[in-house]
Amino acid sequence: MWEMTLTLENNGIPLYEQLYRHIAEEIRAGRLTQGTRLPSKRALTSHLRVSMSTVEGAYNLLISEGYILSRPKKGYFAQSVVMLKPPPERPAAPSAPDNAPAPVFDFSTSAVDKVLFPWRTWSRLFRETLRDTPRLLERGDSRGDAELRDTLTHFLYQFRGVRCKADNLLVGAGVDYLLYMLFCLFPKGVTVAAEDPGYDGAYRLKKRQGAHVEPIPVDAHGMDLNALSASGAQIAYVTPSHQFPLGLTMPVGRRTELLRWAEEEGHYIIEDDYDSEFRHESRPIASLQGLSGGDRVIYIGTFSRSLAPSMRIAYMALPDDLMNEWHKVFRQGGDSVSRFDQQTLNRFIVEGHYSRHLRRSGAAYSRRCQRLAALFSEIPGALITGDAAGLHFVLTLPSKTEKQLVSGARQAGIFLTGVSAYCHKAPAVPSSVVVGFAGLKDDQLKDAVRTLRAAWDV
Amino acid sequence: MWEMTLTLENNGIPLYEQLYRHIAEEIRAGRLTQGTRLPSKRALTSHLRVSMSTVEGAYNLLISEGYILSRPKKGYFAQSVVMLKPPPERPAAPSAPDNAPAPVFDFSTSAVDKVLFPWRTWSRLFRETLRDTPRLLERGDSRGDAELRDTLTHFLYQFRGVRCKADNLLVGAGVDYLLYMLFCLFPKGVTVAAEDPGYDGAYRLKKRQGAHVEPIPVDAHGMDLNALSASGAQIAYVTPSHQFPLGLTMPVGRRTELLRWAEEEGHYIIEDDYDSEFRHESRPIASLQGLSGGDRVIYIGTFSRSLAPSMRIAYMALPDDLMNEWHKVFRQGGDSVSRFDQQTLNRFIVEGHYSRHLRRSGAAYSRRCQRLAALFSEIPGALITGDAAGLHFVLTLPSKTEKQLVSGARQAGIFLTGVSAYCHKAPAVPSSVVVGFAGLKDDQLKDAVRTLRAAWDV
Repeated sequence: MWEMTLTLENNGIPLYEQLYRHIAEEIRAGRLTQGTRLPSKRALTSHLRVSMSTVEGAYNLLISEGYILSRPKKGYFAQSVVMLKPPPERPAAPSAPDNAPAPVFDFSTSAVDKVLFPWRTWSRLFRETLRDTPRLLERGDSRGDAELRDTLTHFLYQFRGVRCKADNLLVGAGVDYLLYMLFCLFPKGVTVAAEDPGYDGAYRLKKRQGAHVEPIPVDAHGMDLNALSASGAQIAYVTPSHQFPLGLTMPVGRRTELLRWAEEEGHYIIEDDYDSEFRHESRPIASLQGLSGGDRVIYIGTFSRSLAPSMRIAYMALPDDLMNEWHKVFRQGGDSVSRFDQQTLNRFIVEGHYSRHLRRSGAAYSRRCQRLAALFSEIPGALITGDAAGLHFVLTLPSKTEKQLVSGARQAGIFLTGVSAYCHKAPAVPSSVVVGFAGLKDDQLKDAVRTLRAAWDV
Repeated sequence: MWEMTLTLENNGIPLYEQLYRHIAEEIRAGRLTQGTRLPSKRALTSHLRVSMSTVEGAYNLLISEGYILSRPKKGYFAQSVVMLKPPPERPAAPSAPDNAPAPVFDFSTSAVDKVLFPWRTWSRLFRETLRDTPRLLERGDSRGDAELRDTLTHFLYQFRGVRCKADNLLVGAGVDYLLYMLFCLFPKGVTVAAEDPGYDGAYRLKKRQGAHVEPIPVDAHGMDLNALSASGAQIAYVTPSHQFPLGLTMPVGRRTELLRWAEEEGHYIIEDDYDSEFRHESRPIASLQGLSGGDRVIYIGTFSRSLAPSMRIAYMALPDDLMNEWHKVFRQGGDSVSRFDQQTLNRFIVEGHYSRHLRRSGAAYSRRCQRLAALFSEIPGALITGDAAGLHFVLTLPSKTEKQLVSGARQAGIFLTGVSAYCHKAPAVPSSVVVGFAGLKDDQLKDAVRTLRAAWDV
């Protein structure tokens, strides 16, 4: 015979829930065994001095979860439940946010200038977008909203020379997500040639998607084509506008040779145009994709550098054959960017705010790049490369080793990455560090360089 | 000798850009061959009657892209460029948005009630979030923002009995994205047992991630455990709160047996709790994850049903061992949901709006479910199942075949899905269609059922 030993408490948990939990636990623990009759609802109300609705609430829950069975005119009976080890206690205090303290001088390559972000405009446009809410609550096109894809198609043609139908453009929550989709379209175990030194994301394809990743050396014009041909790769992953991390621009000669490699062999090129919006010496140079017939190049871009890395909006233009594959694999799934964000971005571009923002931030970044490069150039022997475009350049100081540069900076509280961190098989470019400047404030530049010079003793 | 045949036009494209494009095209087309000297800048200004800055702009671009080489005191020379087939013309008119016209009566299972969405509150909270902008522009934790993960951890414990540390919770852009990450942590070619009939997403794992997917029959209590054991699967993908599409709730007895399968064999269970927020007969029943020690169950939930499918916010609680794997593979990548959206959602939950919204919409959906079920029950022989929870139920009309039900509805302009659409090896539940009601308006219910009865002649 089972005995109810429950004491109801006034602890914020509803009484029916306390009663339910107690009986469920008794059954799970095996104290209330299969077939045992439970007290009638009426008996329980008077025993516990609770209302009938409390007992009914608990019993209904127990029935719906299968803990007890109701037999008309006979009563309520415990059901069989396999015993399990007891679950752990609820998690104690929530973990504190483990954000590291912000560095004094932010030389990272993923930062953006927070002051430049046009948040008043963005906020207004988001409010306007929300007025369109009923429609935007519906599930969207799995490629991304048609309006945004149309707008991007035109924008990319105008600013980057990309030739792509809106039907072949995908909007996704970041470059990694787009790469995930892309590599579901290739055979498993495909070989990808990645620039060495080069972007981590290309190398991550190995662990995440089982691709073979072959590091290919980079010379002053970009990926070495002899090494590429010898590698047996079917796909070349390149950053021609501003090679990451060396910052070089692939000249048109190498571009056309690379395209010929892809066209003659039926291979693909992934053009990652991650920070092409910013070019400090002339207008952004045209994309590799636009130079080609468009059927061998996958073009990838992002708003992480031109707006903010926290936005999580990127895009990818696919050749027709891959787009057909995509429809087979992904058409039935959801898209990955909130439609409110997509529509706000669409307004932002259509109304001209994005062009204005690019001009304004581009000018600010160019000035900062030149001033910072000039300050570093005052160090005897210092060499600046890769500063014609983008939001970082490479600083080489032949009098020091890379290790001395990085650890010296670290001791002064400054986080700098050496080029070797991006090298795989390639020998490191000696004495070189990657200098991101988007996250620096203009009035910090002198202090930052002075601090580094003191740390390096140069 | 090469001759300049350019006519500059007043067509909105800057003159230097027209000049640059013309010369680049001449080089690409092979009319201006390697080593050919170009006109001096001065000669070109007078020939074309343009300013020096126009010519300099064009020449600088050509140099930076590698089309021409500048030799001091000698002039400008065309470089070698491999000839390519000419790129296609720019895409013509943008493709029109291919949204199908909205159905009169929306019986789909992915709809939500658009009137219920608290867009005034959401809009206000988003504005407040934007004030926090500088911080939120920075790249976030790749698991999702710590504040939101803390809040969700508490919410999930309170409402679903999920026991999970914030450190083990991932926020991602939809269930498909979370499943992508999850299956990167398992060995390639792992076998997944999926409910049959069951959710498409489980079956998509085959094409997308190379998993073997074994359909396992579903009985009145959920996945058949004998078939599961016999299948050799290492992972069981289940929807215990409201089986999709049959709508049944897995009773606690089957739950504990399923957990024992996982614990004894070291297997995993994926608990997809996609619409567990809505239960029409009692409060939402506790999760399978909470019943377990927490180390065999992967818990997945989404805001697609409880807020809107266009939001693209879902979450996944991982056991410790998988979380450790996740750090190796994904820690270096970006997260997939805008931090503005994450923080707005966090405010929405913390300030109590989400609980209120769930109560309000839950009550509205319960009423609608009951009214619609009652209307269908008036059809002679009609049977309603799976209506205790969620946003859809199954209607069975033994006097008709499923095909008659689906095509009859289609002829009346109503899109209904038969249960067989979700069947793989399992024999279809005869004469049954899936009825989603979240997208219907309350004043449409009578008309909708009347229209269907006329179409079916019942």
